Amino acid sequence: MTKLEQIYEGKAKKVFRTDDPERFIVSYKDDATAFDGKKKGTIMGKGVINNRMTNYLMQMLESKGIPTHFVEELSDRDTVVKKVEIVPLEVIIRNISAGHFAQRYGVEEGIVFEEPVIEFSYKNDALGDPLLNSYHARALKLATKEEIETIKDLAFRVNEALKEFFLSVNIRLVDFKLEFGRTSDGTIILADEISPDTCRLWDKDTDEKLDKDRFRRDLGNVEGAYQEVMRRIGLG
Amino acid sequence: MTKLEQIYEGKAKKVFRTDDPERFIVSYKDDATAFDGKKKGTIMGKGVINNRMTNYLMQMLESKGIPTHFVEELSDRDTVVKKVEIVPLEVIIRNISAGHFAQRYGVEEGIVFEEPVIEFSYKNDALGDPLLNSYHARALKLATKEEIETIKDLAFRVNEALKEFFLSVNIRLVDFKLEFGRTSDGTIILADEISPDTCRLWDKDTDEKLDKDRFRRDLGNVEGAYQEVMRRIGLG
Repeated sequence: MTKLEQIYEGKAKKVFRTDDPERFIVSYKDDATAFDGKKKGTIMGKGVINNRMTNYLMQMLESKGIPTHFVEELSDRDTVVKKVEIVPLEVIIRNISAGHFAQRYGVEEGIVFEEPVIEFSYKNDALGDPLLNSYHARALKLATKEEIETIKDLAFRVNEALKEFFLSVNIRLVDFKLEFGRTSDGTIILADEISPDTCRLWDKDTDEKLDKDRFRRDLGNVEGAYQEVMRRIGLG
Repeated sequence: MTKLEQIYEGKAKKVFRTDDPERFIVSYKDDATAFDGKKKGTIMGKGVINNRMTNYLMQMLESKGIPTHFVEELSDRDTVVKKVEIVPLEVIIRNISAGHFAQRYGVEEGIVFEEPVIEFSYKNDALGDPLLNSYHARALKLATKEEIETIKDLAFRVNEALKEFFLSVNIRLVDFKLEFGRTSDGTIILADEISPDTCRLWDKDTDEKLDKDRFRRDLGNVEGAYQEVMRRIGLG
């Protein structure tokens, strides 16, 4: 498969067209941003970790019946994925209060919810990725009612699978962000990445943060935390 | 019924305890605020209009099977209502894009939605009444799953009744805010008010604003707009 022109560059990844019209190549960078891009930095080796971890987790999810965009890992940083049109919704699942939830609603971090919480943001940098609900998403024609139901169902199933998996390596899955895409035949599949950039991961015994909050909040040992997750998964 | 001590003073109303433990008296003021209280003013005669209009509309809704807190109009500004514990959710129904929806999601005002949009805010001045969805509301224990389903169902029924009613007097119901309460036996009923303070009302032919946006946006003739709605309803 040949990498052709770059069609997108995000905060942490580049996406390239290929000679196969149904395939893209994603290339993971070490760049890190936070707070809507106001904080910028580099997490050495992050691109390699996030590429390999995402591919490992996507394959685990596929084995449990979740359709994903994963096709083939090409190298440490590059992966072939199915071509999709990204649904412009950030899908966040929360098992434990943290981050924006705690700030927005004035509660402490660490409250374990009785049931997982799902929320959507409108993927729109100019508007600051505002929170919205499924009625807003439909009114704005970001997705159909059926697509939103599929996305919610898949997101909760991803949560169950990831929660169990991370618990098996002594990590609590606090919250995480997913993105979904439409294939050329309109099927909704899981896209984007699953990594310490997009998940809050706390050590089960000590609550030590093993994710991008170490970068956001200047907690130090950012690279070490990403490597520790890789080690526990058996990839490090 | 005797008015006893004041138990609450909001931006537009006071609430008093009475000698009946299951009844409150609500007293409507002329005070107007906007933008989380940053803008303050007076709309002469507003208290009288909002009291009488709310009572008229609550009775119309009762006749259509919607349970409300209305008991008896005592005077121009005072009304006996059932004692409730207010559910700390602002329930907003939108038929046409305007206000916060248009700002938050970067769209113009006046887009007619194919289906009504419902949204909740957490009634919490210190946090700025943040938007939330039903999963957040349950996680924060603001209401149970059953209560939220009841509130959504009632809010959509209120919308159908109010839309039809206002259209009969040549007014488009753009959006509005409702609040619900729990009676002492836990029943969810409609509370608060329904008035040009809490609804966006546009003249059907000219789109002229006949609501509190005239105050918020300094459009002039605020009192005249409130009186015009009263006149069309047949109360002015």
